[in-house]
Amino acid sequence: QDSTGSLTKQLAETAVGVREMSKQLGRTRVHSTIQSILIVTKARDNRLIQLTRELALYLMLKPQKNGRGVDSYVDSQLRTSRRFDAAGIQRDHPDLFVPFPRRRTSDSSVSSTSTAYSKDSSDEEGQLRYWTAEMCSRSPHLFDFVVTLGGDGTVLFTSWLFQRVVPPVLPFALGSLGFLTNFDFADHQSVMDFAIDSGIRVNLRMRFTCTVYRAVSPAEERKNSKFRRKAIKKAETGEILMKNLEKGGWEALESGYSSQVGKCAKDKEIMCFTTRPVESFEVLNDLVVDRGPSPYVSLLELFGDEHHLTTVQADGLTISTPTGSTAYSLSAGGSLVHPEIPAILITPICPHTLSFRPMLLPDSMELRICVPFNSRSTAWASFDGRGRVELRQGDHIKVTASKYPFPTVCADSQSVDWFHSISRTLKWNERERQKSFV
Amino acid sequence: QDSTGSLTKQLAETAVGVREMSKQLGRTRVHSTIQSILIVTKARDNRLIQLTRELALYLMLKPQKNGRGVDSYVDSQLRTSRRFDAAGIQRDHPDLFVPFPRRRTSDSSVSSTSTAYSKDSSDEEGQLRYWTAEMCSRSPHLFDFVVTLGGDGTVLFTSWLFQRVVPPVLPFALGSLGFLTNFDFADHQSVMDFAIDSGIRVNLRMRFTCTVYRAVSPAEERKNSKFRRKAIKKAETGEILMKNLEKGGWEALESGYSSQVGKCAKDKEIMCFTTRPVESFEVLNDLVVDRGPSPYVSLLELFGDEHHLTTVQADGLTISTPTGSTAYSLSAGGSLVHPEIPAILITPICPHTLSFRPMLLPDSMELRICVPFNSRSTAWASFDGRGRVELRQGDHIKVTASKYPFPTVCADSQSVDWFHSISRTLKWNERERQKSFV
Amino acid sequence: QDSTGSLTKQLAETAVGVREMSKQLGRTRVHSTIQSILIVTKARDNRLIQLTRELALYLMLKPQKNGRGVDSYVDSQLRTSRRFDAAGIQRDHPDLFVPFPRRRTSDSSVSSTSTAYSKDSSDEEGQLRYWTAEMCSRSPHLFDFVVTLGGDGTVLFTSWLFQRVVPPVLPFALGSLGFLTNFDFADHQSVMDFAIDSGIRVNLRMRFTCTVYRAVSPAEERKNSKFRRKAIKKAETGEILMKNLEKGGWEALESGYSSQVGKCAKDKEIMCFTTRPVESFEVLNDLVVDRGPSPYVSLLELFGDEHHLTTVQADGLTISTPTGSTAYSLSAGGSLVHPEIPAILITPICPHTLSFRPMLLPDSMELRICVPFNSRSTAWASFDGRGRVELRQGDHIKVTASKYPFPTVCADSQSVDWFHSISRTLKWNERERQKSFV
Amino acid sequence: QDSTGSLTKQLAETAVGVREMSKQLGRTRVHSTIQSILIVTKARDNRLIQLTRELALYLMLKPQKNGRGVDSYVDSQLRTSRRFDAAGIQRDHPDLFVPFPRRRTSDSSVSSTSTAYSKDSSDEEGQLRYWTAEMCSRSPHLFDFVVTLGGDGTVLFTSWLFQRVVPPVLPFALGSLGFLTNFDFADHQSVMDFAIDSGIRVNLRMRFTCTVYRAVSPAEERKNSKFRRKAIKKAETGEILMKNLEKGGWEALESGYSSQVGKCAKDKEIMCFTTRPVESFEVLNDLVVDRGPSPYVSLLELFGDEHHLTTVQADGLTISTPTGSTAYSLSAGGSLVHPEIPAILITPICPHTLSFRPMLLPDSMELRICVPFNSRSTAWASFDGRGRVELRQGDHIKVTASKYPFPTVCADSQSVDWFHSISRTLKWNERERQKSFV
Repeated sequence: QDSTGSLTKQLAETAVGVREMSKQLGRTRVHSTIQSILIVTKARDNRLIQLTRELALYLMLKPQKNGRGVDSYVDSQLRTSRRFDAAGIQRDHPDLFVPFPRRRTSDSSVSSTSTAYSKDSSDEEGQLRYWTAEMCSRSPHLFDFVVTLGGDGTVLFTSWLFQRVVPPVLPFALGSLGFLTNFDFADHQSVMDFAIDSGIRVNLRMRFTCTVYRAVSPAEERKNSKFRRKAIKKAETGEILMKNLEKGGWEALESGYSSQVGKCAKDKEIMCFTTRPVESFEVLNDLVVDRGPSPYVSLLELFGDEHHLTTVQADGLTISTPTGSTAYSLSAGGSLVHPEIPAILITPICPHTLSFRPMLLPDSMELRICVPFNSRSTAWASFDGRGRVELRQGDHIKVTASKYPFPTVCADSQSVDWFHSISRTLKWNERERQKSFV
Repeated sequence: QDSTGSLTKQLAETAVGVREMSKQLGRTRVHSTIQSILIVTKARDNRLIQLTRELALYLMLKPQKNGRGVDSYVDSQLRTSRRFDAAGIQRDHPDLFVPFPRRRTSDSSVSSTSTAYSKDSSDEEGQLRYWTAEMCSRSPHLFDFVVTLGGDGTVLFTSWLFQRVVPPVLPFALGSLGFLTNFDFADHQSVMDFAIDSGIRVNLRMRFTCTVYRAVSPAEERKNSKFRRKAIKKAETGEILMKNLEKGGWEALESGYSSQVGKCAKDKEIMCFTTRPVESFEVLNDLVVDRGPSPYVSLLELFGDEHHLTTVQADGLTISTPTGSTAYSLSAGGSLVHPEIPAILITPICPHTLSFRPMLLPDSMELRICVPFNSRSTAWASFDGRGRVELRQGDHIKVTASKYPFPTVCADSQSVDWFHSISRTLKWNERERQKSFV
Repeated sequence: QDSTGSLTKQLAETAVGVREMSKQLGRTRVHSTIQSILIVTKARDNRLIQLTRELALYLMLKPQKNGRGVDSYVDSQLRTSRRFDAAGIQRDHPDLFVPFPRRRTSDSSVSSTSTAYSKDSSDEEGQLRYWTAEMCSRSPHLFDFVVTLGGDGTVLFTSWLFQRVVPPVLPFALGSLGFLTNFDFADHQSVMDFAIDSGIRVNLRMRFTCTVYRAVSPAEERKNSKFRRKAIKKAETGEILMKNLEKGGWEALESGYSSQVGKCAKDKEIMCFTTRPVESFEVLNDLVVDRGPSPYVSLLELFGDEHHLTTVQADGLTISTPTGSTAYSLSAGGSLVHPEIPAILITPICPHTLSFRPMLLPDSMELRICVPFNSRSTAWASFDGRGRVELRQGDHIKVTASKYPFPTVCADSQSVDWFHSISRTLKWNERERQKSFV
Repeated sequence: QDSTGSLTKQLAETAVGVREMSKQLGRTRVHSTIQSILIVTKARDNRLIQLTRELALYLMLKPQKNGRGVDSYVDSQLRTSRRFDAAGIQRDHPDLFVPFPRRRTSDSSVSSTSTAYSKDSSDEEGQLRYWTAEMCSRSPHLFDFVVTLGGDGTVLFTSWLFQRVVPPVLPFALGSLGFLTNFDFADHQSVMDFAIDSGIRVNLRMRFTCTVYRAVSPAEERKNSKFRRKAIKKAETGEILMKNLEKGGWEALESGYSSQVGKCAKDKEIMCFTTRPVESFEVLNDLVVDRGPSPYVSLLELFGDEHHLTTVQADGLTISTPTGSTAYSLSAGGSLVHPEIPAILITPICPHTLSFRPMLLPDSMELRICVPFNSRSTAWASFDGRGRVELRQGDHIKVTASKYPFPTVCADSQSVDWFHSISRTLKWNERERQKSFV
């Protein structure tokens, strides 16, 4: 019987199902053959080079089921490093350098290129191999596993290296543990043994895909009619509706609904400018848009699923993943958000209204942050703290949940890991029990 | 080929699927035969009685596909109300009072009771019927639809009436719209027509099931061996592990892991007290635990999925749904959270540490808020602002996402509704554009 | 030449002078003969009794210029304490119990009473003497100096003991130092020697005088014409003006100016109720007015120098001294305020508007916190965390800077003391330098 | 008798006296002969030029006691403005242009310069005169009064014009009133009449003197022995003590006391670099030091009266006057501070620790904000939002309460003015009474 009541019940049950699946996702233990490991570190830091050598050697010498050790990829800058001393390794362990047919080719989509590439690097067929940024972006499937040595910055760098599919990442800290670096390098042998022999539990951290759209200049627009657009601004809501929205294109809009008293006038046609995507970044922590060196506050228009949400007058805006809730967003006053929650955090930086409280939106929403044409100054965007890009009037950035999450290896369960990390790093709600300050 | 890489990819795709399903859940338009509507209002307010009469009459006279109007349930307190004047309705519209076989019996699980009940209320077989709190809690399937007249408080009262399955709720405001009351009674005819004729879009708001557990007194425990328990406190983490945890029972724990420097001593067996569930409440906004009239701050222990999360020294703690993010949690400094996000908001009230930032946890987590035995005073819990319950030392409350969400009818899409509500009610980030305060 | 310019200059110079004087006030080193010391501690705590005995003995045996040791007043509850063992002291040091003419009588204003009193306590003329709360409130001049043993609570208790003039207070902590307890008891001999021999630097901490006014009941008012009052509510500003305001009396007002659009109607005469002062408290930290056990938020009207400042809808309100800025006010979101700043801190507790930012007012302002007649519930006031007083509709509390500040002895300069206290107790802005969380 | 008790009493009485004087300062009504008025406005804004002309004409034609109207100084850019049309004024009112001996010479300290200057401007002896920035900075005593037309920015510009003594400033707003612009130009005739005829009440707003110190380069230092310095870093406190501190010079220090556990090592001599003052700014609102275009957070060392207070890791720091508490500081999370309170507000911008709560220090304290030599990047300072200055490693800014406050004319009393301003501009704690959000 299709009464609304039972329909509601059915919806509720689906919701419960979704909740359950999402919980399972964070608890899966993955066990598979690990044959090749990528080691990421700061290739300029002498101490790290030494540790990288140590780790690579341990992995290459650790026999797997097939009788061989693990293939280890180290930074190609180390190929000639005196301190890394590849020649010394070869002298001591010549067997590690016996050529061996590649276990696997790159994924098919880039096959022609990678074949060409394989030829160039035919000398890498021993167990000690060298990675380049290009290999990470083009052939992520070459690596079963990534190990990072360093701080949280090294993990963010790894996210930057893998703009598409990311192998599971196991981050080692050298001194005290960080938010993302939840393993102590002091235990690296037992940690690696356990991961290889018993499998790993993976935390699928959401990333954002941030796409920069540039306004098409009027001159260019005049020449090419496909860039010309017209839109209707609805009188009642202030929403801007546009027909025949070109795939991939979108329009910078300057205004939107607000709770205007009364309903104003009538719909009117407005001028609007076509934009086109020029660059794209995957971020693990956050996108920050701020006024950069400009003395003026930034004026930004924020849209969600094509609706105008609010006009931002502030020093800037952070758009963070739950993973990034402990980074810039926290400084700006945001809440702590468990990485399993599918949400986008919007936290204003020094807003000009007292009521601009931080907000969380569903990660299924498509956000756009626009620099309107009436802004006095340009804005600057940075992606996980790197790559500052200037946004001029008419430009915008689209933010969506990425298809390529960032899998990190859990030490315990995801939740326990996270609570440990905020407790040790933020001293979240820590104090001596008898010494509360009231 | 089952490499970890492809496994990761598969997990990622599942995550995308979950995101998509969850998005769809919030957008389903439900269209079904609406035959009976429950009207909730404050039965003491003369103005509201008048409007209830008006609305009931409109609905009863509006012909449906089957030729009859809608059956309208009004508060049983109105049965004898002079102002409601049921006799006058009968005089003017005798056909509405012609007995008619009940369209539907209650759900099977309570069939025997409801059959008995049906006999008692055999006089209700006209279109004008009277509801009681008992009917709402026992036979929610009698109603296809609930309409509320009043403020947000009336919607919370409706949530309290339906502790299990809730029919879709359409909330009318009388003056200005609230957070939950997104329809203006001035438009009630067109709104009802559209809902009945074209179907509705429903927002499934998460509720919490809050279960109060009382400590079993030592005397009682001595007599009954099944209450006796032993537990192990792990030296390394401070976690308390317990074997043979009895279903429905749980233990009040007084401490837990903290980032103690070094690893202490060894596991030790600790005394623990059995608790048993005594009451349960469904909440739509929040559970608030505070110090009540006590001059001392409350000392609470917070557990998530049986792990100790933190010790709370504060005036209290709010545990809110996303719907409740605009209520008490906001006063206490929490963020605004879109109702579609599956999260639990933990916001401390006047905490005694500077670092106790509000936190969001996944709604799949099971929370327990315990009053430890070393607390100087008891604590008080309130559920959506009602029913203050005292928690004594050893008692606790378990909070989980409810199996029975609260479906409210959207005016527009769920997101647009929500942005409108925070904009009009909080003046979120509103100001005259030229008048920013810096 | 009396041009405005030069007048401005003169005003500016006076401002500089005031600033300079106020700076000097906090730096004066006081050196005088110390003949009698009062020791405050928790008389129930066995460990503290032991330390009190030790300290008293040290002081009584330390020879002063006049050849005698210091007269030591201990809690009269210790007179018969076995653990304090006064008899044992007398046995070991009979000379300390040789009667000696009182050095000083109480201040003249209470002379008749205190003469009577002196007779009663004629047995106290040795060096070991016993204090009572009554002596502290009536004859504070008996004591040159107060020493406290315990935590910040003991210092607050000392403030409560001395409702009028307060001798300089030297607070010893037993374990870790607190906000107010800036001396370690481990060093008590050298600290006391230095204070007695070289003088002390005193920090004059502002206190508030909080006077509770009760509404006079209409019945009482009718009988007694002097309680009847009329007032004018100004149309333009909403201010309530009242002629012939009786000294000591004041009226609870229910409304006030707000930024109403346009200017309304005309002045109207309003009913108002006389109130009369019933109790008065000196507070060192704060006055907190909250909803107590009531489930409803408190509705309070706040007036400054007879002007209506704002209507408070919140869980409550804290009115704090700068000393109290590290207590409840901080929990509620207030700033840290250096104790030398002459300001009143107003910090709302969980306010119902996003824009109710904490505020600081000059300490020369007279504040009134009123429970208006239209409040749904009563409110509760507590003074430095003690003595909860219910405020009914029509009652109010007047807060003014006290004529009787609370002098505490500095360890270093006032500022250095304060920075040390917030650093050690709050861990204000502390972190390992390399481990910032972004 | 000079007991400590009575000394305390005496100190307390002085404190009361200071409080009283400081209260009087804010309430003085100044009445004096007003003969010359300076009008400040944006000389580029056509609408404002028109209103300036109107106001100047009104003032010049308003007869004073001496039978003449008021001399009006307008921006020298208007001398040739067609829209201002000075020729037209002369044509219509030739008598206003009759030369008249200057009423007053500049203050003696700059007499020689200003005499020379007077000659150059001998043509200005009618009632319509032209001001330049140079006149404001060198001869502020020429003007009895300043009137501003525009927004708060125009008032800040006036503060910038008068870097030393400032005549009373009466700020007119054109549209809605701002924080500082508390008079409506629509009422300008009655407001000016009242000010001139009945005198004014002046609000002496504190300004800061901000002095930029540049590190002396090692090369320069080597050549000139007077720049060489040695200092001692105290083992126990971390304080840096320096003998023979040269007047006007000061040393950039890189570290300081922190609540280190235990007491470390011993005093050590540290290298330090001499700095010298290069520029000085008076600010009415705030000094902001931030990271400017640098992607790295700023590292700043904060000193108060030569003591190290804290190390700042944040996006920046605002140092605000109470007047500036409604500007940038508020955006960054600071409290609202009544302008009569003698305090310095320290508000971090996006700090990297959860415990860096905003702080208020006495205005008698001398602050220094240093960029330490170990900072990764430089910092940028702006003064009331203008004049961004780069601070390199080793540079610092000294902030002290200025000898030259900024007198603004009150509409009502200072407090009422202020409450009105925050109420209308921030909507501080405003909401419809029935619609609180909980």
